[in-house]
Amino acid sequence: MDFSIRAANLDDCKDIARMIMELAEYEKVSDHVKVTQKDLEQDGFSKNPFFHGIIAEVPEQHKTKEGHTKIGYALYFHAYSSWSGRAIYMEDLYVMPEFRGKGVGKALISKVAQLGLAAGSHQLNFTVLDWNKPSVDFYLSQGCFDITATMGYHCMRCEGEALKHLAQL
Amino acid sequence: MDFSIRAANLDDCKDIARMIMELAEYEKVSDHVKVTQKDLEQDGFSKNPFFHGIIAEVPEQHKTKEGHTKIGYALYFHAYSSWSGRAIYMEDLYVMPEFRGKGVGKALISKVAQLGLAAGSHQLNFTVLDWNKPSVDFYLSQGCFDITATMGYHCMRCEGEALKHLAQL
Repeated sequence: MDFSIRAANLDDCKDIARMIMELAEYEKVSDHVKVTQKDLEQDGFSKNPFFHGIIAEVPEQHKTKEGHTKIGYALYFHAYSSWSGRAIYMEDLYVMPEFRGKGVGKALISKVAQLGLAAGSHQLNFTVLDWNKPSVDFYLSQGCFDITATMGYHCMRCEGEALKHLAQL
Repeated sequence: MDFSIRAANLDDCKDIARMIMELAEYEKVSDHVKVTQKDLEQDGFSKNPFFHGIIAEVPEQHKTKEGHTKIGYALYFHAYSSWSGRAIYMEDLYVMPEFRGKGVGKALISKVAQLGLAAGSHQLNFTVLDWNKPSVDFYLSQGCFDITATMGYHCMRCEGEALKHLAQL
């Protein structure tokens, strides 16, 4: 299938916001999504951006019945490991259902890996939901490994009122 | 106990490198540490740093028998959640064994939470090793929750030859 991968720009924020919601619906947590198109524009495309993005796009003749040509995305940011140094963190990887199994996801993660290596990173890190077996299997087949299962890493989070309380100790 | 928390600077990299190694020895993986003092200087204290750090310091009269006054640290960087927006990621939190149980760890994580909120972050994220029960219990007591246990998030990684291969797809 004919598609291209390119850096995201300000004009892509509407489609990224749409696909973030589609991904959250697939993960059964669409009520958790607070990020808006405006947040993405402000946080990703102003000075000192908090993230970067890449877009998978198909030519006009392959557009969806709703008229979408932007059919996948990945978000990433630079990170650091105190053991191995520079790293890249992939926040999301998504391909619209009707375009799966055609190499788009592989092309997106490959591009993130390229961007990481180009910035001197030694690691690509991300999370996956353990019940999302197609995704887990895809990542394992690409040479990634599950450091929760093999080394016991657990993801911890503090947010909302608990975060405000923590900041006031 | 008398101690202070302040932003790390270039002169702290020697002690941060020492404490990274102490933490890795505690976690039984000191052979995994590739980061040197020079890497920390270059990656954390040049233009567009990959991470930021804070240091816990005691007055001269409380120095260790080896002469150390820098007795704890945390590293962090800005991150992004496609659901909730700006976030802060804490890469490490460490207090030297003889200074534990005196509120130093609490003061360090509280400072990271403050810095996150000041930057508009809605989340503090980090990982912990599940066998490190004192740390897990400490974080849970501070209002953090384990999103691996409660939501099924697994940490995934790609590095070394596998990362180079992934970039060449």
